[in-house]
Amino acid sequence: MLVIGELINTSRKAIKEAVDKQDAEYIKNIAKEQFEAGANYIDVNCGTMINNEVEIMEWLVNNIQEAVEAPLCIDSPNPKALEAGLALCKYGQPMINSISDEKERFDNVLPLVLKYKAKVVALCMDDTGMPETSEDRMRVVKSLYAKLKAAEVPEDNIYFDPLVKPISSVETAGMEVLETIRLIKEQYPLVHFMCGLSNVSYGLPNRKVLNRLFVAQTMAVGMDGYILDPTDKDMMGVIYGSMALLGQDSYCMGYLKAHRKGLYQ
Amino acid sequence: MLVIGELINTSRKAIKEAVDKQDAEYIKNIAKEQFEAGANYIDVNCGTMINNEVEIMEWLVNNIQEAVEAPLCIDSPNPKALEAGLALCKYGQPMINSISDEKERFDNVLPLVLKYKAKVVALCMDDTGMPETSEDRMRVVKSLYAKLKAAEVPEDNIYFDPLVKPISSVETAGMEVLETIRLIKEQYPLVHFMCGLSNVSYGLPNRKVLNRLFVAQTMAVGMDGYILDPTDKDMMGVIYGSMALLGQDSYCMGYLKAHRKGLYQ
Repeated sequence: MLVIGELINTSRKAIKEAVDKQDAEYIKNIAKEQFEAGANYIDVNCGTMINNEVEIMEWLVNNIQEAVEAPLCIDSPNPKALEAGLALCKYGQPMINSISDEKERFDNVLPLVLKYKAKVVALCMDDTGMPETSEDRMRVVKSLYAKLKAAEVPEDNIYFDPLVKPISSVETAGMEVLETIRLIKEQYPLVHFMCGLSNVSYGLPNRKVLNRLFVAQTMAVGMDGYILDPTDKDMMGVIYGSMALLGQDSYCMGYLKAHRKGLYQ
Repeated sequence: MLVIGELINTSRKAIKEAVDKQDAEYIKNIAKEQFEAGANYIDVNCGTMINNEVEIMEWLVNNIQEAVEAPLCIDSPNPKALEAGLALCKYGQPMINSISDEKERFDNVLPLVLKYKAKVVALCMDDTGMPETSEDRMRVVKSLYAKLKAAEVPEDNIYFDPLVKPISSVETAGMEVLETIRLIKEQYPLVHFMCGLSNVSYGLPNRKVLNRLFVAQTMAVGMDGYILDPTDKDMMGVIYGSMALLGQDSYCMGYLKAHRKGLYQ
């Protein structure tokens, strides 16, 4: 299971303000909190800072690494910002968020995946746009898998993101994701998965309840990575509880430890 | 989705006391509460009253049906108690809990399934004992399915119970259940499923959290029936939320209604 802490993202108001004020302590604390709460990777996203994304990425990466010896997930659609962040990563194997089967993005990001021997989130989309059905997604998966494989990216480094859409707009949006995971696991048993959660519940009340249930459901069919807020105790409780139920937690030790740490409140 | 209200069971102290005192009002209230909370069936189990199970079954069924016009799930290993309850059922299609592939039990219960055109819970066990793996379970499923089919029990009336065991004693207990559901759905797409929940979390802390997660996980692979406490709002919230995520809830109307009713507290 791979948990990526999502909090350091300039689309969040508090992070934007900390960046604007060059408040390094705030950023360091958020990094530390996420790592201590159980994040395996810290996501770094300043994609909203269009004019100076590269400089801000460097500033964020340097400050985060002063606070925690954590591997980072460098998150941007901009290859220059990706490279700026990756070049500074000091701890463990870096992760790139993300590549896709859009031609220009693929061509720009693949060299970085290879150069930095990075894990990579591979979005199930191409130049025809966002996918609807699991068939749409599998068409992209097939193409992306073939190209990544041809470039000798190890399967263990590939994290397919099926792209989660709101069930409030299309009833079957959740099922299409479950079905995509099933199909990928069947055909490519060695790759991994990654997804964000908030889209699925968009437009509905009690979104946190739905997001948590969606984690339990997707884990049941094989999802093994999430980008989320690791300081959300209920959510981390769902991860540990689901791992125990799925036989991914020897003697339920992770679950018991999480219980003693005060999750499930 | 079929929710069977589990509360009227003489293994529960309050029910045993109400039965001993012939406190019909208490029983009626519990029946009403469960039905109003969303139970589709009310389970009736007085299996602990070995000396007069038949009389108590009749007393319970009559009283419950004075309180609610609900279909009942007559629950006993004793065919005489089953028949006594079934003969009195007035509302909708009755359910029998349960048949198994133990020879004597099968031979005694099958005639009742046929006579009362009942839905039937079919336990994945036979005279060799409780199953361990999904293969053990599928061996029993195959045999039970063939015999029920030969007796012309409609597939829509069959609810396979994979028999849930504690993850605290065998790490893979949850996975074996998920795998069994997958295999049954693949081979017999028209049958249904039913299970109890409390076993899975036996011996661990925060059992309710695990039980709820196990509902989300099993629903994700196709489970469509549970025997549970329908007055547990968190649990019913999980059912409605999971249905919405699985595309089983047109326009999320059931979820929204549940939200307005104050579930998810």
